[in-house]
Amino acid sequence: MAHFDTEYQRLEASYSDSPPGEENLLMHVTNNLTMFLNFHHVYNLHQKNGFTCMLLGEIFELVQLLFVVGFTVFLANCVDYDILFANKFVNHTNSFKVTLPDAFLPVDVCSAHIRDNTFVIFVLIISGVFWLHRFVKFIYNVCCYWEIRSFYIHALKMSMSELPYATWQEVQARIIEIQKEHQICIHKKELTELDIYHRILRFKNYMVAMVNKSLLPVRFRLPVLGECVFYTRGLKYNFELIFFWGPGSLFENEWSLKPEYKRGGNRLELADRLASRILWIGIANLLLCPVILVWQILYAFFSYTEVIKREPGSLGARCWSLYGRCYLRHFNELDHELMSRLSKGYKAASKYMNCFLSPLLMVVAKNVAFFAGSLLAVLIALTIYDEDVLAVEHVLSSITLLGVCITVCRSFIPDKLMVFCPEQLLRVILAHIHYMPDHWQGVYSRGAAQSGGDSHHPHLLSEEKTAWTSRVDVSRRDRGIHLPTSRRREDRVVPHALCHHQPAVAASSRDNPLHPPAERTSPQRGHGRA
Amino acid sequence: MAHFDTEYQRLEASYSDSPPGEENLLMHVTNNLTMFLNFHHVYNLHQKNGFTCMLLGEIFELVQLLFVVGFTVFLANCVDYDILFANKFVNHTNSFKVTLPDAFLPVDVCSAHIRDNTFVIFVLIISGVFWLHRFVKFIYNVCCYWEIRSFYIHALKMSMSELPYATWQEVQARIIEIQKEHQICIHKKELTELDIYHRILRFKNYMVAMVNKSLLPVRFRLPVLGECVFYTRGLKYNFELIFFWGPGSLFENEWSLKPEYKRGGNRLELADRLASRILWIGIANLLLCPVILVWQILYAFFSYTEVIKREPGSLGARCWSLYGRCYLRHFNELDHELMSRLSKGYKAASKYMNCFLSPLLMVVAKNVAFFAGSLLAVLIALTIYDEDVLAVEHVLSSITLLGVCITVCRSFIPDKLMVFCPEQLLRVILAHIHYMPDHWQGVYSRGAAQSGGDSHHPHLLSEEKTAWTSRVDVSRRDRGIHLPTSRRREDRVVPHALCHHQPAVAASSRDNPLHPPAERTSPQRGHGRA
Amino acid sequence: MAHFDTEYQRLEASYSDSPPGEENLLMHVTNNLTMFLNFHHVYNLHQKNGFTCMLLGEIFELVQLLFVVGFTVFLANCVDYDILFANKFVNHTNSFKVTLPDAFLPVDVCSAHIRDNTFVIFVLIISGVFWLHRFVKFIYNVCCYWEIRSFYIHALKMSMSELPYATWQEVQARIIEIQKEHQICIHKKELTELDIYHRILRFKNYMVAMVNKSLLPVRFRLPVLGECVFYTRGLKYNFELIFFWGPGSLFENEWSLKPEYKRGGNRLELADRLASRILWIGIANLLLCPVILVWQILYAFFSYTEVIKREPGSLGARCWSLYGRCYLRHFNELDHELMSRLSKGYKAASKYMNCFLSPLLMVVAKNVAFFAGSLLAVLIALTIYDEDVLAVEHVLSSITLLGVCITVCRSFIPDKLMVFCPEQLLRVILAHIHYMPDHWQGVYSRGAAQSGGDSHHPHLLSEEKTAWTSRVDVSRRDRGIHLPTSRRREDRVVPHALCHHQPAVAASSRDNPLHPPAERTSPQRGHGRA
Repeated sequence: MAHFDTEYQRLEASYSDSPPGEENLLMHVTNNLTMFLNFHHVYNLHQKNGFTCMLLGEIFELVQLLFVVGFTVFLANCVDYDILFANKFVNHTNSFKVTLPDAFLPVDVCSAHIRDNTFVIFVLIISGVFWLHRFVKFIYNVCCYWEIRSFYIHALKMSMSELPYATWQEVQARIIEIQKEHQICIHKKELTELDIYHRILRFKNYMVAMVNKSLLPVRFRLPVLGECVFYTRGLKYNFELIFFWGPGSLFENEWSLKPEYKRGGNRLELADRLASRILWIGIANLLLCPVILVWQILYAFFSYTEVIKREPGSLGARCWSLYGRCYLRHFNELDHELMSRLSKGYKAASKYMNCFLSPLLMVVAKNVAFFAGSLLAVLIALTIYDEDVLAVEHVLSSITLLGVCITVCRSFIPDKLMVFCPEQLLRVILAHIHYMPDHWQGVYSRGAAQSGGDSHHPHLLSEEKTAWTSRVDVSRRDRGIHLPTSRRREDRVVPHALCHHQPAVAASSRDNPLHPPAERTSPQRGHGRA
Repeated sequence: MAHFDTEYQRLEASYSDSPPGEENLLMHVTNNLTMFLNFHHVYNLHQKNGFTCMLLGEIFELVQLLFVVGFTVFLANCVDYDILFANKFVNHTNSFKVTLPDAFLPVDVCSAHIRDNTFVIFVLIISGVFWLHRFVKFIYNVCCYWEIRSFYIHALKMSMSELPYATWQEVQARIIEIQKEHQICIHKKELTELDIYHRILRFKNYMVAMVNKSLLPVRFRLPVLGECVFYTRGLKYNFELIFFWGPGSLFENEWSLKPEYKRGGNRLELADRLASRILWIGIANLLLCPVILVWQILYAFFSYTEVIKREPGSLGARCWSLYGRCYLRHFNELDHELMSRLSKGYKAASKYMNCFLSPLLMVVAKNVAFFAGSLLAVLIALTIYDEDVLAVEHVLSSITLLGVCITVCRSFIPDKLMVFCPEQLLRVILAHIHYMPDHWQGVYSRGAAQSGGDSHHPHLLSEEKTAWTSRVDVSRRDRGIHLPTSRRREDRVVPHALCHHQPAVAASSRDNPLHPPAERTSPQRGHGRA
Repeated sequence: MAHFDTEYQRLEASYSDSPPGEENLLMHVTNNLTMFLNFHHVYNLHQKNGFTCMLLGEIFELVQLLFVVGFTVFLANCVDYDILFANKFVNHTNSFKVTLPDAFLPVDVCSAHIRDNTFVIFVLIISGVFWLHRFVKFIYNVCCYWEIRSFYIHALKMSMSELPYATWQEVQARIIEIQKEHQICIHKKELTELDIYHRILRFKNYMVAMVNKSLLPVRFRLPVLGECVFYTRGLKYNFELIFFWGPGSLFENEWSLKPEYKRGGNRLELADRLASRILWIGIANLLLCPVILVWQILYAFFSYTEVIKREPGSLGARCWSLYGRCYLRHFNELDHELMSRLSKGYKAASKYMNCFLSPLLMVVAKNVAFFAGSLLAVLIALTIYDEDVLAVEHVLSSITLLGVCITVCRSFIPDKLMVFCPEQLLRVILAHIHYMPDHWQGVYSRGAAQSGGDSHHPHLLSEEKTAWTSRVDVSRRDRGIHLPTSRRREDRVVPHALCHHQPAVAASSRDNPLHPPAERTSPQRGHGRA
């Protein structure tokens, strides 16, 4: 890692990993651990709309886990598909109709099936262990958030029922007021919004910084596809495990680095230890890979099949990728502020991306839709004439699949009435995402100048395209906007932010989500400096 | 009723129930009754887009009635469901397919069924009487509107075919012009827009006043649900029956109160008479209740089943409640003006209400949708693999019901990309609905001040929520915005309006629907006085 | 034709059919024919997004032709529908299910069927000849566009992959630059944008002029329907065949009239020759009529059946008619510029037209929807209760057809929440379509004046309605906005444009599609002169 952190070294002298003026205070803070946890939990409880919603959500998650495993095992072992598919007749005494229960095997046959299948038993054990782990965590969470609930009700005087309709700014204002009277944080006389933001966003700020400095290995240059970004939820989880809260992580607790990481001397030794830990985590990932994969496939199947059937157009819907969300995040920006900003830019960004649909794909999609549509037209006409056609095997399946195929094709065909004005759209997007690589500037003003001989559009396309991924993404391969490599050395925003030499951030932290972000006084990242 | 009308008493001295300067004129008006009816009918014919459309609409209504009763009786008595549900075999000589006519019973069996069923005969008689009553009314209407049609063609020089494309302002301008030349109203030299509005809206203005003064018993405090509003079409019909046009109503004819109601002396006696009349109407309602209920269920079933199947999302769609429409109505505001105003505010109001979806319901809906979606996913996958699965009993029903269930759930889940900005939306709504209770004011400016310690949002929610009802509402329980009780005594707008001391109304009556209502010079009701 | 061209005669003295200053140049242009073709092809290749897309598109077109003919012949001759409709049993040895291949006749039976049917053989021969013609044209096009591709890559230095993201203005700018250096056009020292536009749009400008001057017989006065416009793709093709590129057409090559047409002397003789040619082309059309009709029905069936099933609402969707597109086109306006302009006006125009839905149709549609919905409701309820109902013959067909019927009806029922403001919409439309007949002016400002006694709305309606046609239009009867007859004599814009006395057009030709057309400095056609 030594070749990455040249700037970290230069800045290390003036660099302290805790918010300024906090380190010496922490010495005599001993029993306010819960208070530090507090801010994060207080924010979470607000975002999750109160205790009942959070509780219910977590209970449902536990039940979902049980349901997915149980239902899958049931489907695999306890159903006689020959009866469902009418390959075998059922003998009824009083009726000749087949009912669903006829297709279920008796309990003893079913349990014998399960007992004989070692893989099923293995999966059941693994998921049982995982479920117990989740259950323990759930119990812990309930206790923890029960306290936060009391804090809301007794200290902040907000009932859980009015919490969903209070903004975070209101909650924060009350916390600051409370601190003045009751001194809930011992180590500091007065609490500012910035303090609260710092405590909540400690790890997030680190992640943003690491993504912005390209310290994380998320971008690869593949032989055919060119440069692409691989930053999934799984990878993010592993990163957080390694850096923040896993065994042997860099952090002592929720807010401060371990002392040994603050000295430059034992750097190489620490790097070795980190490398070996990463190796072990990698091996654990590899071993658990089949189980995780099966889980993801099952979960995606249960979640998305119905959506694809109902509105197959959602297959082509776009969303901000995990990488994009990390890359476009400001320092000291809470989740709901980021999401509000990105949501405001979504419509324009979506339209912008639709301006650059591949014309080749369009031609192919149009014609595939025609051929599929022709076959479908004949089947529909036959069905309307006489619905006995549906009894012919695979006719209904064909109709369904051809329908899905056509709708997927249609999502690649742009609206004929679309007005092509990418530059105006880009301007709207930038007003919300607040970031533009330096080499976009020519493009931005080209509409007026018309002088630039070399077309930037294809670059724009490949640049922006990766900020989006299909919404229904089974393998959850999230890709993001590429960081222009030239910024890596010049950009001082990242270490500055970590050193808290940013008076503008305080203003940002007071930001009301109702004010459009364009009003912010802090300069736009990257672009503002040009 | 004595405790309600304290203000009525105070104002009674200066109060005349007819437009000013009209009472003495009415003395020597004897034979222009038809002319008074005229304005209302003239407006109706314009709103119904001409004579042919009105005629066709009324004929269709009569046919609908026959159809609903006849079809229901047919379905109940003349169909052999065992054949439809394949519980009984049909013996065909030349084919083995079951056709729809096979399931219909022969005419003699069918008529015997009906003859044996006394309830069916009772229903048939009741609906026959009702239909005849409607038919007589229809004949009367046709004659009446035929005259109006002649008035349009010969007096106003407008053909029926161009009527739909003329605005009411144009029609009105011609009426006023005609009056100058031909003196169609004997009692007055010059006719103004206000006169026309007053004549058309006589009863509506009374209703608006009564709703605004909370004189009508439409708000109840239920044990669990808290205060709720019950103001349905049925109730409205009964109110109109009691006050305006029923036997023994308060009004002599379309425009003037009976003389005995104008004297304060026999007030108690009149109240007693009204009480006994209301009792009798209540008893009549109770007796007819089963028939009305069956009719409403049948009509809702025939009207909405297909809508729910096609787009179940419409179950969650909102509309302005009957109470809200009455409560937000200005005095002297014609139906189309009110609807245009409310339609303009609809989008913002709908978005505003979606900002306050119950988070608890959201969590439950998300998870119910997941479980239902899982089952549906398996059924869909099996069906695509081999459509013989559909032949298994209740599989298709399950697919349909699960699909409906999921779509209903989805209507409770807000869009992930929704931007939360209720105050801006509220501002937009207010620009159209022109009314804000006093205690909203803090909320309105709170975005800037941030000083108010107590959260008003939950109040807002319960306040606004009741202004809306689900569009598909079988029981037609309409609820509306609560009238703040503090206004009851201070608000002089209502009696003022009745006394016509309102010069601003004349301007309002000249209002072009093309001008946004924000340009009106008249102060906003309630809020404008603050 | 003599009575049509009074103005042509008056202007003929100063009229030259070639762009100014070009005629004498053409004398010594001998070998740059390919260069003249070039501009049109260069533009086409840009619009079709590069060589690969164009190639693929043309190949798919050839395959589509084969597919439609082959598939139809197969369906007509090689399928045993009795098996599909379960009127005949299949004897399987191992299973009792009917599969699709069971319904296909063996190859020898099938080919015998075809051989016996002379009509099929006739159709096959005709379509074979047509396909070969298309194939030869395809080969020619490939060779031609391969050269254009080289021109793009080597001369303009644009790769095919970046072409879709370059605007036409960029391509044009490079061509002009290239001309300065390499002198690609021999006959002129400097090439301007106007030159390029003239070359590309030579024929289009003629068509626009002829439509604007009502020289083409596209408007008829029918006994019942009143004046209507008949201008289909087929008619347009025939017009182009007659005037521009067919054997014996008026043009010598892509840019200049035959010399004999430039002299006024042999006018009558030429008119006779043209008349006889038109007669022969008419006879050819009549003979090919059955084949063309069958083709159009088949193609419409294959293209639109699926669309109608999926979203029957598209039946009521509107689009700019072929006549409207021609009538609203500026001189020297490229296809993409016109389409961008019309697309911008589409939304407002569509809303505007929905303001004038026939109220009579609305009443009928509402009630038909109610009756169909009632029947559908019963069928759906029965199906959900027990899906064996679907096995009854024609139940499924009824459900499908009733569903389509209801959705078609719904497209005639306006949204209840629609705000009626046609004048504002008309203003928005005019900002994009740039044209308003003189007699609209009263309507336009009537909202303020309110003085005009005669209602113009019905005229507006019939005027505008014809500018639209239903998007799914089997017979492709395109209708357009009527040209007000009073303009025919006064309007000098048309001959002026042909004589190129229009400095504003040059500015227009430099127009960037990103600039909204409202910024154009050239006066609006027709209206601007008022």
